[in-house]
Amino acid sequence: MKKTISVIGSASASEELLKIAYAVGKEIAQREGVLICGGLGGIMEAASRGAKESGGLVVGILPGAESVAANRYIDIPIRTGLDEARNLVVAVSADAVIAVGGELGTLSELAFAMKSKRPVFGIQTWKLDESYCGKVNLVHVDDPREAVEKAFSCI
Amino acid sequence: MKKTISVIGSASASEELLKIAYAVGKEIAQREGVLICGGLGGIMEAASRGAKESGGLVVGILPGAESVAANRYIDIPIRTGLDEARNLVVAVSADAVIAVGGELGTLSELAFAMKSKRPVFGIQTWKLDESYCGKVNLVHVDDPREAVEKAFSCI
Amino acid sequence: MKKTISVIGSASASEELLKIAYAVGKEIAQREGVLICGGLGGIMEAASRGAKESGGLVVGILPGAESVAANRYIDIPIRTGLDEARNLVVAVSADAVIAVGGELGTLSELAFAMKSKRPVFGIQTWKLDESYCGKVNLVHVDDPREAVEKAFSCI
Amino acid sequence: MKKTISVIGSASASEELLKIAYAVGKEIAQREGVLICGGLGGIMEAASRGAKESGGLVVGILPGAESVAANRYIDIPIRTGLDEARNLVVAVSADAVIAVGGELGTLSELAFAMKSKRPVFGIQTWKLDESYCGKVNLVHVDDPREAVEKAFSCI
Repeated sequence: MKKTISVIGSASASEELLKIAYAVGKEIAQREGVLICGGLGGIMEAASRGAKESGGLVVGILPGAESVAANRYIDIPIRTGLDEARNLVVAVSADAVIAVGGELGTLSELAFAMKSKRPVFGIQTWKLDESYCGKVNLVHVDDPREAVEKAFSCI
Repeated sequence: MKKTISVIGSASASEELLKIAYAVGKEIAQREGVLICGGLGGIMEAASRGAKESGGLVVGILPGAESVAANRYIDIPIRTGLDEARNLVVAVSADAVIAVGGELGTLSELAFAMKSKRPVFGIQTWKLDESYCGKVNLVHVDDPREAVEKAFSCI
Repeated sequence: MKKTISVIGSASASEELLKIAYAVGKEIAQREGVLICGGLGGIMEAASRGAKESGGLVVGILPGAESVAANRYIDIPIRTGLDEARNLVVAVSADAVIAVGGELGTLSELAFAMKSKRPVFGIQTWKLDESYCGKVNLVHVDDPREAVEKAFSCI
Repeated sequence: MKKTISVIGSASASEELLKIAYAVGKEIAQREGVLICGGLGGIMEAASRGAKESGGLVVGILPGAESVAANRYIDIPIRTGLDEARNLVVAVSADAVIAVGGELGTLSELAFAMKSKRPVFGIQTWKLDESYCGKVNLVHVDDPREAVEKAFSCI
């Protein structure tokens, strides 16, 4: 069974975050991990491109029942027909999760990933107040290599 | 079409939070709203009991395909067979959402509810850092009556 | 807990089938059952109208995250945001299932309902060849009253 | 983007059907298709083994949130946490679908696949009466090679 990492983040993001996502994808592929993402644009596309350009394999878990919306770096489109509920699948599909930035969709994925006890790492993503819940296992890291190294060390 | 409010929160909670949830359910029923919840124990059961004891109607959106796990105040069990993905349904089913406390499941519901642009109110629930996202439309309130009044005023 | 019956069928149907669906809804309401359906037009709307005009309560489990597509007889819209996957929820939500006519969506619901061991009755619906599977527990009946009587006798 | 074929069928099956599923997997891999399946035993495992032993890539779309139930030939486990609703994902994920035998779960997948207008081929699977619906696009074939050849010719 191959090692899998889900990269989560928004369909639109700053240049800085896109560069980070690209580097995360690259680092995953260089360690022979399979990149799983939501299959669309923005952070998903940047990470996919990073993985693809380093010879990696990219799985895109799409909200619709068709693959037309998939970014061009997706090797294996998983068409779900589940709309937003595909976020749950992206969150729990992989051995570990790395968030880059992110908005409300990413927040739902972080919640599901943590609930399913996946190792979760984040770069410039949601900061969650631990005062209400002792179980926030989201580790904030500074750079792509650190995120990917830590993710692989947990698998 | 009846007015509906989803009340979200954990299956286990402090006495203080359970009392708050009970009061939230009561206030919803007194305004002839239908209470929607996840159908299980803890906050869900306390809110259901509050609504039921004030003559309200209670819908429980259950994770399993059977109704055996439903709390005893549920009038209409919606068995989903979706496991955790039923959180999405709880979050977007109603006209407005009120969170009481909550852990990671509640966080996923808050994210989905905000993403679907529902009015969302919270009592002692997740505080979300707005520095990463301008769209956090979660309004923190202090007491059950205020939460329910504000929720109804948005519908 | 109230008794619930899911009525399944297509969004477009012949006049004859619409009349049957209307009568099914009426019979359910007269026995104080809650009608659950997919919330849209055609068979779903006819059954909803039948139940509503007999003073019944109607739950519509909608594919989208908004209630705008709900037919006007829905009392409680359950917005799912699950698109086609809401068929699973319609199929397993209730204590028993009655199919009136139906196309491929109805076929998926019949399959899920039978898999979840719900009592399932059908009027002019899919005939399933038992030669490949001994578990086809779909009972074909001729008229609405018979369908509803048999469904209630199984709950 | 790689070509993908979903193979669907039961978790327990006769020796004859298991051999057919194995051959289907083999034929898919020999044409460099990616095999998608439900990831568990029986038909799913036999097809996975066939693909794997011919050097193919195998994706298993699992009902649970963990990969422990995956058969040993799965390269990429997609953990969904959706329970039975993962059938929808298996049905619509791929470019084409091949059913080998099958019970009620397979019937739900056939319905979703046809509804999403995927090319669908079946070997000893459900025979669906067309008298109620003109849209049954399920083509019955006799042997694995024919099924896979026809599936690829439609993609």
